Amino acid sequence: MPVETIRWVGRLDGWVELVDQTLLPGEFTYVTCETPEQVWEAIRALRVRGAPAIGIAAAMGLVLGVRDSEARDFDAFMADLIQVRDCLATSRPTAVNLFWALQRMERTARDNADLPIPELKQRLLDEALRILEEDKDTCRRIGRRGAELLRDGDTVLTHCNAGGLATADYGTAVAVLFAAKEQGKHVRAFADETRPLLQGARLTTWELRQAGIPVTLICDSTAAQVMKEGRVSAVVVGADRIAANGDTANKIGTYGLSVLAREHGIPFYVAAPASTFDLSLRHGSEIPIEQRDAEEVTRWGGRATAPDGIEVYNPAFDVTPAKNITAIITERGVIREPNAEKIARLLGGGQ
Amino acid sequence: MPVETIRWVGRLDGWVELVDQTLLPGEFTYVTCETPEQVWEAIRALRVRGAPAIGIAAAMGLVLGVRDSEARDFDAFMADLIQVRDCLATSRPTAVNLFWALQRMERTARDNADLPIPELKQRLLDEALRILEEDKDTCRRIGRRGAELLRDGDTVLTHCNAGGLATADYGTAVAVLFAAKEQGKHVRAFADETRPLLQGARLTTWELRQAGIPVTLICDSTAAQVMKEGRVSAVVVGADRIAANGDTANKIGTYGLSVLAREHGIPFYVAAPASTFDLSLRHGSEIPIEQRDAEEVTRWGGRATAPDGIEVYNPAFDVTPAKNITAIITERGVIREPNAEKIARLLGGGQ
Repeated sequence: MPVETIRWVGRLDGWVELVDQTLLPGEFTYVTCETPEQVWEAIRALRVRGAPAIGIAAAMGLVLGVRDSEARDFDAFMADLIQVRDCLATSRPTAVNLFWALQRMERTARDNADLPIPELKQRLLDEALRILEEDKDTCRRIGRRGAELLRDGDTVLTHCNAGGLATADYGTAVAVLFAAKEQGKHVRAFADETRPLLQGARLTTWELRQAGIPVTLICDSTAAQVMKEGRVSAVVVGADRIAANGDTANKIGTYGLSVLAREHGIPFYVAAPASTFDLSLRHGSEIPIEQRDAEEVTRWGGRATAPDGIEVYNPAFDVTPAKNITAIITERGVIREPNAEKIARLLGGGQ
Repeated sequence: MPVETIRWVGRLDGWVELVDQTLLPGEFTYVTCETPEQVWEAIRALRVRGAPAIGIAAAMGLVLGVRDSEARDFDAFMADLIQVRDCLATSRPTAVNLFWALQRMERTARDNADLPIPELKQRLLDEALRILEEDKDTCRRIGRRGAELLRDGDTVLTHCNAGGLATADYGTAVAVLFAAKEQGKHVRAFADETRPLLQGARLTTWELRQAGIPVTLICDSTAAQVMKEGRVSAVVVGADRIAANGDTANKIGTYGLSVLAREHGIPFYVAAPASTFDLSLRHGSEIPIEQRDAEEVTRWGGRATAPDGIEVYNPAFDVTPAKNITAIITERGVIREPNAEKIARLLGGGQ
C-alpha cells in the first residue's frame, strides 16, 4: 500500500530521490536531486507535491545546500543555511509544512551551535530523516483515527491527492481509507479528478487501485450529483495550511465541496498532521494563496484547450471556513467542530 | 456577434452544413451532412450540440432522410418518415428540443397529408427552415429579457456553452450577455471550463471574445471561490429539458452551481426557449440523463489522464431543482420562482 514518495540515498554525500509525480500514472520514475536548486524546481513543478511531502523535500534540500558549506564557524555556517532556506522558501507559498520543516531544520542547527561543523551537518541530515520517519508514523496515526469515523460499507469522496504520494508514504485523507481497509472495513471512494493538474485522476485513483480499494473517478463538477444521489458517506480531504481558528487552505475546489457536503448533510473531514496548523494566523483570510500559470488551464498535453491569450484565474487553493468542517483529524486526536480554543488545547500538548 | 452554427445549403436537393464544434477553438470548419446518418453522428459526437441547435439539426436531418423517399402515398411516406425520426431520436436522450423538433416535423407532415408527396417534402424543408429562423428570433427575445435583469458593471458566471453555437446563432444564457452589451451595459463573464469536454473553455470564451465581452476562464471547481470573493453578480445557464414544475436538466455541474449561488446570495437564472419545457414530466427526476463514455474523462488529446480501466461515472447532465432557480428566462417572459402553475400559465398561451 505505501508508496515511497521521497528518500535520501547514501550518507551525507548522498542525494535525494523522489517520484516524479508529473509523469504518473503513465510512468513511475524517481528523479534525483543533488542540489537545493533541483529540489526547488521539483517542488515548484509539482514533481513532489502535497504539504507533508513538500516539507520533507525542503528539509532534505536544505541538507543538500549546506553539506558542502566551507564555513569554519557557526555564524558563517548559519549564513549559508539561511541563504539556502530563503531560496527553498520561495518554491511554493501556501503549504505551511514547507516553512515548518525549514524552521525545524534551522532550530536544529541553532540547538547544536556548539558542535563542530561536520557533526552539525550530520545532525541536520539526521533531522531531515527524522522528519521523514515521523511523517510515516504521523500518517498512520491519522489514518487510524480517521478510520474510526468510517463504518463498514462507507463511501468516501476525496479531492486532489492527499495520499501516500503527498506524504512520505501513507497519506492523510487517503490514509483514512487505507486504515479502514486494514481494519477490515469495506470502503469505497469517489476521486474528484481535480483540475487543472488532475492529481485525483492521475494519482489518487492509482494509489487506491494499488491498495485494492474500489474507486470511481468523477469530474469535479460531478461531486454535487453523487452527493445528491446519496452515494457519499463522508468527504475527506487533506490540508495545506490550517489557521488557528480551523479555517483550512486546501486544493482549489475544496471550499465548494464543503458547502455541498453541508447542503447534503454529509460529514466533511480534514485530515492533516499537526505541522499543518499555522497558529500565527488567526483566520483563513490571512493564508497566502498561490496563483499558478494560466497554461495549466489552457493547455493539456501540448494542445490548446482554450483560445490563445484568454484571461485565466487559476488559484491553486481555496480556504474552507471552520464552520463547514465537521472535524479535523490529526495524529494527536480528532477535533470536532473545530475552533481556536479546541485547536489550541490539542496542539498545546507540545507542538 | 452571431455565429451561424448550422445552415441548409441550396434547395430540397441541398445539404446541411454545421460548424464542427469538436475542432474549436483551434479550427473553425463547417462539415457537410447529406444523410440523416451523418446528422445522427454529428449530434452523437457533439459536432453540433446545445439543445436548440440539436433540434434544428434533427429537423434538417429528417428532411435529408425523406426527400428521396419513393413513397407514392401519404401512408407509405409517413412510414419512411417515422423510420428516420426514430433513428434521429436515438442520437441523444436528454435535450427535449430534439424530440420537440421531430414531433413538430411529424405534425407538419400530418397537417399536410393531402398534398402531393413532392410538395409535402418541400413543406417539410420549409418547416425545418422555419424552426431555424424562429430560433434566431427566440434567442434574441431571451437575450433582451435576460439583459433587463443585469445592471451596468455586472459579472455573469456561466457554465458549458449556451451561446450562439448551442443555437442557430445567438445563444440563450450567453445571449443575455450579448443583449446587455447591445443595450450599452458593461458586462463581464466568468466561463467555467466545463469538464469533461471543455465547452466553456473552447466555445464560450471564444464567442465572448469575438463579441468583445471580457471573459475570464476558470476551472469548474473555482466557481465557488469567485462567488465567495464577491465577484459574481449572477449565474446564467442554459437548459436541456425543463420539467413541468421547473426542475431543469443542464450540463453536469449546473446543480452544484445552483447550490453555491444560493449559499452566496447570488441570483441563479436559466435561459431557455419555450421548446425546452417538457410538460409531460412532472418532476426533474423523470428526465432521462445521458451517460457518456469513460474516455471523455480518462483521455485528452489522445493521452491518458488516468490509469487504464479505472471506473468512471460520467453523466452528461444533472437536474437543478426549481427551488434553486431564481428565474427562468424564456422568449415569452421571465418566470420568477418558477413552479408548475406559473409555467403552465406562461406556456398556456400557445405552446
